[in-house]
Amino acid sequence: MGDEQTPVFEENNQDRPALWGVMGNERMNAFSDGVFSIAITLLAFSLQVPASAPAGLLQKLPALLPEAIGYGVSFFILGVYWVGHHNMMLHIKRHDRWLLWLNILFLMFVAAVPFVAQLEVRYPTDRIAVIAYALVLIGAGLALNLMWRYATHASRLTPPDMDPDLVGFVNRRQLMAPTAYLLAIVISFVSTLAAQLVFVVVPLLYIVPSPLDWYHHKQLGANEG
Amino acid sequence: MGDEQTPVFEENNQDRPALWGVMGNERMNAFSDGVFSIAITLLAFSLQVPASAPAGLLQKLPALLPEAIGYGVSFFILGVYWVGHHNMMLHIKRHDRWLLWLNILFLMFVAAVPFVAQLEVRYPTDRIAVIAYALVLIGAGLALNLMWRYATHASRLTPPDMDPDLVGFVNRRQLMAPTAYLLAIVISFVSTLAAQLVFVVVPLLYIVPSPLDWYHHKQLGANEG
Amino acid sequence: MGDEQTPVFEENNQDRPALWGVMGNERMNAFSDGVFSIAITLLAFSLQVPASAPAGLLQKLPALLPEAIGYGVSFFILGVYWVGHHNMMLHIKRHDRWLLWLNILFLMFVAAVPFVAQLEVRYPTDRIAVIAYALVLIGAGLALNLMWRYATHASRLTPPDMDPDLVGFVNRRQLMAPTAYLLAIVISFVSTLAAQLVFVVVPLLYIVPSPLDWYHHKQLGANEG
Amino acid sequence: MGDEQTPVFEENNQDRPALWGVMGNERMNAFSDGVFSIAITLLAFSLQVPASAPAGLLQKLPALLPEAIGYGVSFFILGVYWVGHHNMMLHIKRHDRWLLWLNILFLMFVAAVPFVAQLEVRYPTDRIAVIAYALVLIGAGLALNLMWRYATHASRLTPPDMDPDLVGFVNRRQLMAPTAYLLAIVISFVSTLAAQLVFVVVPLLYIVPSPLDWYHHKQLGANEG
Repeated sequence: MGDEQTPVFEENNQDRPALWGVMGNERMNAFSDGVFSIAITLLAFSLQVPASAPAGLLQKLPALLPEAIGYGVSFFILGVYWVGHHNMMLHIKRHDRWLLWLNILFLMFVAAVPFVAQLEVRYPTDRIAVIAYALVLIGAGLALNLMWRYATHASRLTPPDMDPDLVGFVNRRQLMAPTAYLLAIVISFVSTLAAQLVFVVVPLLYIVPSPLDWYHHKQLGANEG
Repeated sequence: MGDEQTPVFEENNQDRPALWGVMGNERMNAFSDGVFSIAITLLAFSLQVPASAPAGLLQKLPALLPEAIGYGVSFFILGVYWVGHHNMMLHIKRHDRWLLWLNILFLMFVAAVPFVAQLEVRYPTDRIAVIAYALVLIGAGLALNLMWRYATHASRLTPPDMDPDLVGFVNRRQLMAPTAYLLAIVISFVSTLAAQLVFVVVPLLYIVPSPLDWYHHKQLGANEG
Repeated sequence: MGDEQTPVFEENNQDRPALWGVMGNERMNAFSDGVFSIAITLLAFSLQVPASAPAGLLQKLPALLPEAIGYGVSFFILGVYWVGHHNMMLHIKRHDRWLLWLNILFLMFVAAVPFVAQLEVRYPTDRIAVIAYALVLIGAGLALNLMWRYATHASRLTPPDMDPDLVGFVNRRQLMAPTAYLLAIVISFVSTLAAQLVFVVVPLLYIVPSPLDWYHHKQLGANEG
Repeated sequence: MGDEQTPVFEENNQDRPALWGVMGNERMNAFSDGVFSIAITLLAFSLQVPASAPAGLLQKLPALLPEAIGYGVSFFILGVYWVGHHNMMLHIKRHDRWLLWLNILFLMFVAAVPFVAQLEVRYPTDRIAVIAYALVLIGAGLALNLMWRYATHASRLTPPDMDPDLVGFVNRRQLMAPTAYLLAIVISFVSTLAAQLVFVVVPLLYIVPSPLDWYHHKQLGANEG
């Protein structure tokens, strides 16, 4: 990093080589992990300690339970996006300004999840809450996929020898959730409860191992103990 | 990492080798450290600045003191789990999708601690508060132990030459706290105050050095100054 | 790091060599990433879940929309500063006590952004809110530029062979935003709405690629896949 | 790390060698940076957006200004502790269970700073607020010094060839702040305003470079550009 000769700064040179960008995504990943860990921990703020409980907390449980379930569901939904970001960044070896900004766009939706989760928990029967929640998750999913498409286009920020089947597989996988959430919006016009079931089911689709895991193992799983 | 030949992506190859998973737990640990540091800092939110103190803050101290003690106790309880996670991850060298998700399950309980701690501080004599606190801590303990059992089973994500006595020792040690908290629930039916004493005592059991520390030193303590 | 002979501690030796400071900015960057990720996630706290919505959330949308836009704009403004800090630190290889403190000064303004953003969203037509927002951003911009000037002065903490044109270019680029925000203050005396447009426009100037990116690529973009 | 032969786990072997502990303080530092960045960003929560401002925000400025000053002062006080922790950890190369726990004790005081800062800003003329603030800072200072004494005692976790003058210098320097805050408590019985001046002055003593910086440069400042 410091051994190479420092290049000359040219204000007008914009020849973009095939392999472009800067090595070292550590800070980009650290910043993302920070936003994720805060957003996921702030979800617990949708859980409200009752201001008073003259007849004991037991009588407050029926009100607290849906909040607790909402907390768990949103936690796993954010978990899906974190695992997705983590797995995607195993392949993206470099970054440039656009990737940083697409990542910030992605994080903008991630950081908005605690707000829409709280909206959803407070107004579970209001269609607007379902739509707001779905739109934020769709935004996050599309931004994540934009990062992938930008990085893999002509191997811009990914290894040139990466299997093209992998690129397509990740595309389909990343768009699975936004498609389901779009469906949830449609369903919400019939029943908000049924739409909420979509939010519960989608994370389950992402938790089971996928062919990606075998590819990652072959690529990054050392034999060392 | 980038030197090896990039493997081919096969959608159906699922032969799981003995040593499985992906090297490099940095982001998983960073994400966990993030959630821990936020949860542990948010504990201070159970401390409420008095809205008004016409007769001076001195008269508010009797109300603030139990909150301050509750803060300290919860801080050390989360500390136990952080140290436990840190020590466990010294042995787990690789990760796969299931480990990431077990970790997210563990963090879900960790992130819920500020909420139940606040519940406990606001309603110290309510048995439901004691039970909620204990259940969240039991959940965290069991999730941590699930990670360990999953990773060590047939040396799935741990070194194959690791001493089996160590595996058993860590199992017993990780289950010590959930067992104690189960006891706290039982005790809470007799006295909530006595149950709360369990929360104070358990961290003390984990602070004292253990044979694990000697093992870690032999494994990871270099002689270099 | 540990291989070299440990030097003697002399309480009065203050000969400052040309190349000064301590290698390894990891913790300084990690601390900064932490503050950024918290500040940027806390922006969502300016979004308030309506306390009650007897006629449905749909009727609350006109009130929520400006808040949502304010959230997005502030998110991208903080993004500009994070990208700016990230890019600057690609060149600053070492740190000393003054740089750490200039960085803390910078972070003090960054951490104040959620407060002034909330002020701005609550009182969009109040000139004081515009001025407070602009002053915090000017403070952040000047502190960032102070770091750069301090580090590059006589190559104090930057490589001695760095192109001086680059130093000047970064100076001009970092001072572009504070200048625009100064203008926003002036404009606010005519129209607060027009002043707010400045906040929307400035991030766009920083998102487009710059000659810096080509320099960074030449310096840090490896050919490895 | 993985190349050495894995040692045998012995439940009763407790021979403590001269050089003890585990290499690699990354997670301990990351966890600490996390707590610091959250605590320092949460300070801004002592700044309250006025609930209503019928006569404009200008008339609210006299009430907001002391809060803003309090924010700045507390930010720099936490900065002092972060820089102190950072500089101390340049020397501590290994950790053991006790150091982790002393660090958690230190962080418990760090995380309590936003609470006592808010207390101080809300009740600036109340002696209890001054004393609470001072006690938390004294706790943080003593915990930091405990870490240093524990680590350097018989070179337990520091390099054996470290200059003993350095150890003593750091001890004196770390105890300077707690001593000043003890003085602030005494002064508060005469005047709370005078006591608050101590909080403003102490950070200034730590910002100026010290002989430590020359030592760190000689030890860790590489000549590479």
